[in-house]
Amino acid sequence: MTLTHLNARGEASMVDVTDKSTTQREAVATGRIFMQPATLEQLVDGELPKGDVLATARIAGIQAAKRTHELIPLCHALMLSKVSVDFDIDRDTSSVGVRVMCRLAAQTGVEMEALTAASVACLTLYDMCKAVDRGMEIGEVRLERKSGGRSGEWQRRH
Amino acid sequence: MTLTHLNARGEASMVDVTDKSTTQREAVATGRIFMQPATLEQLVDGELPKGDVLATARIAGIQAAKRTHELIPLCHALMLSKVSVDFDIDRDTSSVGVRVMCRLAAQTGVEMEALTAASVACLTLYDMCKAVDRGMEIGEVRLERKSGGRSGEWQRRH
Amino acid sequence: MTLTHLNARGEASMVDVTDKSTTQREAVATGRIFMQPATLEQLVDGELPKGDVLATARIAGIQAAKRTHELIPLCHALMLSKVSVDFDIDRDTSSVGVRVMCRLAAQTGVEMEALTAASVACLTLYDMCKAVDRGMEIGEVRLERKSGGRSGEWQRRH
Amino acid sequence: MTLTHLNARGEASMVDVTDKSTTQREAVATGRIFMQPATLEQLVDGELPKGDVLATARIAGIQAAKRTHELIPLCHALMLSKVSVDFDIDRDTSSVGVRVMCRLAAQTGVEMEALTAASVACLTLYDMCKAVDRGMEIGEVRLERKSGGRSGEWQRRH
Amino acid sequence: MTLTHLNARGEASMVDVTDKSTTQREAVATGRIFMQPATLEQLVDGELPKGDVLATARIAGIQAAKRTHELIPLCHALMLSKVSVDFDIDRDTSSVGVRVMCRLAAQTGVEMEALTAASVACLTLYDMCKAVDRGMEIGEVRLERKSGGRSGEWQRRH
Amino acid sequence: MTLTHLNARGEASMVDVTDKSTTQREAVATGRIFMQPATLEQLVDGELPKGDVLATARIAGIQAAKRTHELIPLCHALMLSKVSVDFDIDRDTSSVGVRVMCRLAAQTGVEMEALTAASVACLTLYDMCKAVDRGMEIGEVRLERKSGGRSGEWQRRH
Repeated sequence: MTLTHLNARGEASMVDVTDKSTTQREAVATGRIFMQPATLEQLVDGELPKGDVLATARIAGIQAAKRTHELIPLCHALMLSKVSVDFDIDRDTSSVGVRVMCRLAAQTGVEMEALTAASVACLTLYDMCKAVDRGMEIGEVRLERKSGGRSGEWQRRH
Repeated sequence: MTLTHLNARGEASMVDVTDKSTTQREAVATGRIFMQPATLEQLVDGELPKGDVLATARIAGIQAAKRTHELIPLCHALMLSKVSVDFDIDRDTSSVGVRVMCRLAAQTGVEMEALTAASVACLTLYDMCKAVDRGMEIGEVRLERKSGGRSGEWQRRH
Repeated sequence: MTLTHLNARGEASMVDVTDKSTTQREAVATGRIFMQPATLEQLVDGELPKGDVLATARIAGIQAAKRTHELIPLCHALMLSKVSVDFDIDRDTSSVGVRVMCRLAAQTGVEMEALTAASVACLTLYDMCKAVDRGMEIGEVRLERKSGGRSGEWQRRH
Repeated sequence: MTLTHLNARGEASMVDVTDKSTTQREAVATGRIFMQPATLEQLVDGELPKGDVLATARIAGIQAAKRTHELIPLCHALMLSKVSVDFDIDRDTSSVGVRVMCRLAAQTGVEMEALTAASVACLTLYDMCKAVDRGMEIGEVRLERKSGGRSGEWQRRH
Repeated sequence: MTLTHLNARGEASMVDVTDKSTTQREAVATGRIFMQPATLEQLVDGELPKGDVLATARIAGIQAAKRTHELIPLCHALMLSKVSVDFDIDRDTSSVGVRVMCRLAAQTGVEMEALTAASVACLTLYDMCKAVDRGMEIGEVRLERKSGGRSGEWQRRH
Repeated sequence: MTLTHLNARGEASMVDVTDKSTTQREAVATGRIFMQPATLEQLVDGELPKGDVLATARIAGIQAAKRTHELIPLCHALMLSKVSVDFDIDRDTSSVGVRVMCRLAAQTGVEMEALTAASVACLTLYDMCKAVDRGMEIGEVRLERKSGGRSGEWQRRH
């Protein structure tokens, strides 16, 4: 199997998707930001006044999904038909999780859109909390599942 | 200590930096993408033809640093005076590491620029390699050190 | 009837348009900027040399229509097939009116594109004239009619 | 007095601000969106679940302020040091008001940034509510006051 | 034959492509940057360390193709299905040539995308080499051939 | 002399301008688009209705100058204090010339901004006229003079 973003001489190019069929495609990606328990409590107790921290990160994630092709050089522009961004609070690992779902009918997949949205939502959480906790860490940014296209269904094994 | 991006009623706003002094500021952030050993070997052996994979990710990271304020809703626009993006290959953890340094003279710090560049460089590596390895994971996206500004020097403890 | 940009828990997301049919859609929106009679006369008499003030506002409106999905967080990216921006001079109300028509075949409507173009054309007129008249006011930014899609034809009642 | 965005032959150009002094500048602009009383009640009663509608519009306004120079052809790029967006609910006129304050130290004013943010916040409110009320109208988009620069303090007379 | 970007009164508008048929379209455009023989030798000998100068220009060209509709006011947004950027070194004319191919299925052509990518790749080469040679010149930016659409095949005669 | 955009190992990075002094800088760049005499006559005679073709290209050039750092990967973001775009008609060579002047006080020069504006203005002229003349060619895109900065005054020798 070869990497499809590189031509015969190893030079980058935008892969030709002309002959791919337009199918319904969907991808789910996640990310997680780990923080001090005290930071998480401020977020949960609404001392980081409830709503806006997550609302801001959600909006940032959705907008980033739409701009993925500007950020990732060899990504195709797509017209997403749905983007959702959800959060979970996990006290055991003292972290906030982000879960993004992207969907569209297209000739190429939406994995990068979902991963980009998850990353930017995590970066926005970092930005919203960094005044109280500079040591936060973003991790577990990964594809959970995808469907549609020639390679069909794919599911991460945990 | 309070979160500075939220006003008295808990609503998001761009923090006023008018009265902060303009100082030399610098931030170093890192990220890492974990992949199958076989994927890493293709990258190292130049079966992913050498140069362009990392070159593309480097360019993507530099450009993302410049667009941080478009991606992160409450970030101020800045005029970066330097951005560098470096990579390391780690066979022990089967991963590629990204290290970004941003520098400028400004009234506000460049942590978000460095973190955003590191994230987007990792996302680009994912995009360049995803045809052979969909299960890659991005992690360890974090600030390593910063200097300048009122809070002065900060260094991550490992 | 419920607001479709909010999910069950009240969180913002980009509405799923996957199952909507692709139809010919069209929207007309207007806006109006009210100014001092003397400012309008300068514009009409070509002391604000004729052509470029309106030409600049027209170009700004067309370009804004294409970028609506970047400005309005939950708007879908669309590929507009036509955008036109027209102006009228109304001495009775001492104002310049903007009328925008957008058209495309898509799964979602173009009302926001037309309204955004009308707003940005008015803002550009403000910018072009503000050196002589800071008190101008933009109003009557509204949808005049739309067609296509499940809800079909809609016409503003005056 | 002449329009400063046009050269001797009436052609548009970006005004030279080289010799203007860098002073603290501030501008306040407002806008208002008029809707059906029933729409406003849904918004107030949280049937449009409270928080996210206004939170989304606030974020959109802040981000638009930062992109003003991309939207308004002859505006200079600026580095805003503060942007805030506030809302009020007015049942008498069945409307939501937007009030934007922008601040920075620069050679040119921030009126356009404040006006653009107010417009885009209103457009976003339209987008969030249009599923239940297509006839909403945006108006009263205007500068309330500005300070700084050669022309000094300016205040709208009502 | 009339210019299709101007309406009956000579005002600019985005041409209506609603009734055009969606066909496979392709365009090839070229550009060339002329430099001092010594500059070219540094580039060829890898004193301008090989790979990254061309890699950076290639990425810049690909990304510019995707943003053509933001740069050229009356261009329609398109979803390119393929973009490739290739270079040649010509010692006889002491120049580097750029050749761009764009492809998609759409209602309007991709000439502007190919020409914009070629121009921006040349500008990036200028930027990468300007520290040693400020007098470089970009020329021969032109369409070489196009296919698809109502006007069908077109080939430059040399 | 070495190329300053490449680090010791030949990898691209944004040059550090931290220690450069802020001086008044200015650059003039030109470009030219060659067309059929009949195309030029349509433009001159106003069959391409006068004003808007050049007005659109002028606006496109000014806006491109402001976005140079997004297009050219290693360019620094700048805050231009002046941009002007002028045209000349040359029947002898059957061409339209573009002349751009950019000015600002900064730590780095504005050559790339002037060259980018000239290129995009020419591309826009191509777009406005391509319906009648597909064989047009853009050339003579070059720096005419620059001032300011460590290297001081530079003037092209013709």
